[in-house]
Amino acid sequence: MTKPALTAAEIEELLAAEFPQVFKPGSGLSIEHVEFGTARVRQAFRPDHIRPGGTISGPTMMALADFAMYVAVFSVVGRQPLAVTTNLNINFLRKPAQADLIADARLLKSGARLVVGEVTIRSVGADDPVAHVTATYSVPPRRD
Amino acid sequence: MTKPALTAAEIEELLAAEFPQVFKPGSGLSIEHVEFGTARVRQAFRPDHIRPGGTISGPTMMALADFAMYVAVFSVVGRQPLAVTTNLNINFLRKPAQADLIADARLLKSGARLVVGEVTIRSVGADDPVAHVTATYSVPPRRD
Amino acid sequence: MTKPALTAAEIEELLAAEFPQVFKPGSGLSIEHVEFGTARVRQAFRPDHIRPGGTISGPTMMALADFAMYVAVFSVVGRQPLAVTTNLNINFLRKPAQADLIADARLLKSGARLVVGEVTIRSVGADDPVAHVTATYSVPPRRD
Amino acid sequence: MTKPALTAAEIEELLAAEFPQVFKPGSGLSIEHVEFGTARVRQAFRPDHIRPGGTISGPTMMALADFAMYVAVFSVVGRQPLAVTTNLNINFLRKPAQADLIADARLLKSGARLVVGEVTIRSVGADDPVAHVTATYSVPPRRD
Repeated sequence: MTKPALTAAEIEELLAAEFPQVFKPGSGLSIEHVEFGTARVRQAFRPDHIRPGGTISGPTMMALADFAMYVAVFSVVGRQPLAVTTNLNINFLRKPAQADLIADARLLKSGARLVVGEVTIRSVGADDPVAHVTATYSVPPRRD
Repeated sequence: MTKPALTAAEIEELLAAEFPQVFKPGSGLSIEHVEFGTARVRQAFRPDHIRPGGTISGPTMMALADFAMYVAVFSVVGRQPLAVTTNLNINFLRKPAQADLIADARLLKSGARLVVGEVTIRSVGADDPVAHVTATYSVPPRRD
Repeated sequence: MTKPALTAAEIEELLAAEFPQVFKPGSGLSIEHVEFGTARVRQAFRPDHIRPGGTISGPTMMALADFAMYVAVFSVVGRQPLAVTTNLNINFLRKPAQADLIADARLLKSGARLVVGEVTIRSVGADDPVAHVTATYSVPPRRD
Repeated sequence: MTKPALTAAEIEELLAAEFPQVFKPGSGLSIEHVEFGTARVRQAFRPDHIRPGGTISGPTMMALADFAMYVAVFSVVGRQPLAVTTNLNINFLRKPAQADLIADARLLKSGARLVVGEVTIRSVGADDPVAHVTATYSVPPRRD
């Protein structure tokens, strides 16, 4: 099995430096686990993400999916110039519980120019997904 | 020409009541114009939406598109139970300027069960779009 | 484990009756396996699906994904009025081999109104996917 | 106004050479009009595209959208190596009439690596769209 290009701790450090507005104390975002081409991340439950009727907002889930994909991309491309999201498609499947969200990202393709992956989001402890995402990232020409 | 089911002011009131976490003082979101089936909304520039290199974050644009679509949906369905986003597909096209974003939503279909629309996002004063979105909303059975 | 609502043979019969233009002798389409909420189908290799450079055409893969999803939907909803595709999103990942294609469909949600699923397409005998699809179907009110 | 890189006749010739399996006598496909970055194409009505209930099949519309986008891409990039479809997202909006389909493609972005556009499909003579598509093409490094 291929080792991830960066550990979870190294990716957290990189994200804190590169995305200080997203990955910052109080965001509730954390990395649970990283393998080569996959990542599990978590969004801690925050009442201000709640919509009437108790639903966690769509943009919260889109941001979480984007975050999960960034971690998975870093696990493969390593400390390279930042990839740019070019397409994101999300299907909202079920009303999430008032609980933390877990997002599992998995790369489907890691090419020289484009990286494509999918993300499944669940409420912690639940089996059925609340949202499913596919996303594409454009990778800048490598530094090396 | 059909009149919108609700005016911009009525929709703002509705959103402040129904989405207090999204449409609140300090969000920078405002409604510029509403017709039957179309809406123009604005996201005021906020430095905390900026990514390294000066790009406005993807989730900010996804949230703006979702907001624009909600306004367009209300312009047609009126004061009805809330629609639910079921699918959102976004293509990121260009790096936005460090400026307000303008989003133009237009419904492509307004059915009894599903409403589909597209949103074009531009930096204020620019012609070329920075992002393009299509989104689908499931409309609950009407109250009447 | 829940039994599928219809067997592969019953679904083939239904499709031959309902989609004679798609599922017909000579189409090269066949059902390999059906479980409750999943389906594996096959597109036999046909030289007229080939594009220059030896790539199987995109529309061939889109049609195969749509077919796979129909089978998976039937495995859950049974002999009901036809579902209608409302959204299909496909990412083309790799150049397929000049070989049969295998498509694995899996439902992510089977609601009263909408069914959502994903399909992974591979060249027979290969591990890496050539395309990934998510699709949504609107289910008409049940007959019963 | 920028002139298209190739005329409709030149693009038809190119497609007949490069996509003989798609753009061939009997396909019912034709180019109606080309400008720089836009194209209008037509799919002649063919009874074998019909699904039960009189609906033109989804794959027919996906193939038509892909064709329209190829024409629009050629209108900008000219006689270059072939672009490859990387993503296609289609929303089916209404049941088409038993009539020819007209597809209008418009590029949203034409970058050095990715070209993104949208396509609106209508039944000839009708105003309301039957389907809306966004698609992305990866452009190979230019020959020059």
